[in-house]
Amino acid sequence: MASKSTQVQVSLGDRSYPIFIGSDEIRNADIARYVSGKKVLIVTNETIVPLYLESLQQQLSDKHVDSVILADGERHKNLETLNLIFDQLIGGHHDRKTTLIALGGGVVGDMTGFAAACYQRGVPFIQIPTTLLAQVDSSVGGKTAVNHAMGKNMIGAFYQPQAVIIDTDTLSTLPDREFYAGLAEVIKYGLIVDADFFQWLENNIDLLLQRDKRALAYAIELSCKSKARIVAEDETEQGIRAILNLGHTFGHAIETFQNYKQWIHGEAVAAGMVMAAELSVVTGDLPEADLQRTKALLQRCSLPVTPPADMTSDDFARLMLRDKKVLDGQLRLVLLKRLGEAWVTDQFSIDHLNQVLTKACAAS
Amino acid sequence: MASKSTQVQVSLGDRSYPIFIGSDEIRNADIARYVSGKKVLIVTNETIVPLYLESLQQQLSDKHVDSVILADGERHKNLETLNLIFDQLIGGHHDRKTTLIALGGGVVGDMTGFAAACYQRGVPFIQIPTTLLAQVDSSVGGKTAVNHAMGKNMIGAFYQPQAVIIDTDTLSTLPDREFYAGLAEVIKYGLIVDADFFQWLENNIDLLLQRDKRALAYAIELSCKSKARIVAEDETEQGIRAILNLGHTFGHAIETFQNYKQWIHGEAVAAGMVMAAELSVVTGDLPEADLQRTKALLQRCSLPVTPPADMTSDDFARLMLRDKKVLDGQLRLVLLKRLGEAWVTDQFSIDHLNQVLTKACAAS
Repeated sequence: MASKSTQVQVSLGDRSYPIFIGSDEIRNADIARYVSGKKVLIVTNETIVPLYLESLQQQLSDKHVDSVILADGERHKNLETLNLIFDQLIGGHHDRKTTLIALGGGVVGDMTGFAAACYQRGVPFIQIPTTLLAQVDSSVGGKTAVNHAMGKNMIGAFYQPQAVIIDTDTLSTLPDREFYAGLAEVIKYGLIVDADFFQWLENNIDLLLQRDKRALAYAIELSCKSKARIVAEDETEQGIRAILNLGHTFGHAIETFQNYKQWIHGEAVAAGMVMAAELSVVTGDLPEADLQRTKALLQRCSLPVTPPADMTSDDFARLMLRDKKVLDGQLRLVLLKRLGEAWVTDQFSIDHLNQVLTKACAAS
Repeated sequence: MASKSTQVQVSLGDRSYPIFIGSDEIRNADIARYVSGKKVLIVTNETIVPLYLESLQQQLSDKHVDSVILADGERHKNLETLNLIFDQLIGGHHDRKTTLIALGGGVVGDMTGFAAACYQRGVPFIQIPTTLLAQVDSSVGGKTAVNHAMGKNMIGAFYQPQAVIIDTDTLSTLPDREFYAGLAEVIKYGLIVDADFFQWLENNIDLLLQRDKRALAYAIELSCKSKARIVAEDETEQGIRAILNLGHTFGHAIETFQNYKQWIHGEAVAAGMVMAAELSVVTGDLPEADLQRTKALLQRCSLPVTPPADMTSDDFARLMLRDKKVLDGQLRLVLLKRLGEAWVTDQFSIDHLNQVLTKACAAS
C-alpha cells in the first residue's frame, strides 16, 4: 500500500505546480500524470543510475523513455554538458511535446531545467531531486542555470517545472557530507523567515542527523513551504526572493576561489551565512547570542563556520564584486534584522564589511 | 530636423513594446529612453561596425557602452559564439541592470536576444535590425535562438525586446542578395494574411527593387503590423503563430542539406513557399493561378522557386521529419487555404507531399 505523502503547492498562476514529499515517492507518485506527450528524456548522473533509474523507468512504461547520463559534480554544470542533453534530444527526435525529467541533485536539476527552458524555446520538465539540498532548495522555484568559467549560475532562466517529486528514501543513500550540506539550506529557512523552525531544528537536530524519516519529512516540508511562499511572492527575484541567497554572496566567493574543487555548495553557504550573521551583529541588528546559536547549529551538522584557511579578505572583496547581486556597481547583501527575518540591503559600511572579512579570515 | 517616423505597437501586456520605422532612425530615435541602467553592451558584427557602430555609440554617450563584434554569418549562430557575448558581459562586470543592443541582421538579433534571455536569467535588450529580413521578421516577436549542429534554432527562448528601431537607411548598404532574401519574407505576409498587400507588392515591386524609400517604409510597416498582430494573438506559438513559418519546413531542409553554406535563409524560404503553395494546389485549396502569381513575384525578386538541383525528394523527406514543427512524430505544415490565408495542418496525404517533392526536385 502506498504510504501517505504530503503535498505543498507553489502558487504561480498558470505556472503553479505541486511538490509531493514522501517515502518511496518515485514508485508511489503518479509521475506519468505530469507527462503530456509520448516521449520522455530522463537526465541523471552516473551515481544515481544504479540506484533509481530503473524504478523511474518502470513508472513510465507506457511512454517512450530515453535517458542521458551526465558526469557527476558542479564542475560539469556548463554549456558543454548542457549540449550533451541537446544532442540526445535532437538525436532521439524529441519534439516540442517531450518532457524532461531531472533525476538527481542540484546540478542535474539546474541543467535539466535550463535545457527544458531552451530546447525548442521551452518544453515541460519534472524535478525528482535526490539530494537534501536539491529537495529543499534548488528543485523548487524555477531557477535554472549553468555556470560560466568566470562565474556561477551566470547563464540561466526562470522556468518552472510541472511537478516536484521528493522521495525521502533517496536520502538514505546520500553521503554524509552532502547530507550535512543540505542541512545548511534547511537551517537557512529558519534564519531568514522562521524563528520557530530554527528552534525546532535546534531541538531535533539529533533526530535529523540520525536521518529519522519523520523528522526529515517535516524539515523538508517546512523548507519547501517557506520557499514556495517566497517564490509565489516574487518569482523573478525583483525583491524579497533574494533573501533566499543568505550567505550565498560570501559562499560563491569561496566556491569561485576554490574553482568549485574543494568545498561543496552547502558548506560554502554555511560559512557564508555565519559571515552574513557576523555583519548583521556588527551593524547592530542581530544579537550576538543568535550568531552563536547559528554557529552552534551549523557545527552540529559538521559544517564550516569560518572561511577556507587560504582565503584572505582581499580575495573575498575581489570575488564578491562579481556576484550577480551587485547592481550598478553597488554590492548588496542579505543580512539578518533578527533571527527569522532577513533583508536585502546595501546599507552597511565597507569598513564594517572589511572588519568582518578580516576577522573571519583570521579565525580560519 | 528629425524626419517623421512610423510607430507600430506589439501588444503583449507588460511585455508590450514599440517598433519605430524611419529614415536615419539610429540617430533620430530616443534609444537611451529604453536603457534603464548605466551600462550597455552593443552586440554587432564585423560588417556593421564601420557603418553604424559610431552613430549608435554617440546616441548613448551618457552610458557606459561596451561592444562585442561577432563574425558574420549563420554558421556562427551557435552556443560557442553565444559564449563570446557572455565572456564580454562577465568580463566587463555587467550586472542585471545592463541592456544589450543587437545591431545587425537576424543572426546578431537572434543571438543577442537569447543572450539577454539567459544572462543572469534575463536582462533587457533592444533590437536595431540592419537587414530587411531582420526588420520585417526576426527582430519582431521575441523568438530568439541559436543553432545546434543537428538542427536550426533548436536552442532558444521567447524573449521580447524593450523596443525595435528600424532605420530604413541601413537598406541602402545591404547587398542585393540579402535584400532579395528579405523580400521573400515580405511577400510571405501577403501570402499568409493579407491578399491586398500581396497585390500591392505585385503593383509596386519595381519601386521596391529600386529601393524607393517610401515604398520600402510602407512594406516594412505593413509586414511589422501583420507580424505584431499574429504575435499578440499567440506569443509562444501554441497555434496561429506557426503560419509565420510558411515555407520554413521545406526551407530548413534545404539549409540543413547545404549545411547553411549555400543558400541564405530567405532564398530557402522562397523555394519552400513555392513548395507549400504547390502542395496547397494539389490538396485542392489554392487555385493554380495564385501559385503562378506567387512564383512570378518571387522570380521578380531574383529568388529561387525550385529546390537546389542536387537535392532529392528523399533528402527532403528525411530532413523535414527533424523539423521543430513535427509533433509526436506527425509532420505538420503551413499551407494556403487561399492567397492571403494560411493554416497549420497535418491533413494532407503523404502521397500528395511526395508528389510535390518529386515534381519540385525534378524541376530544379
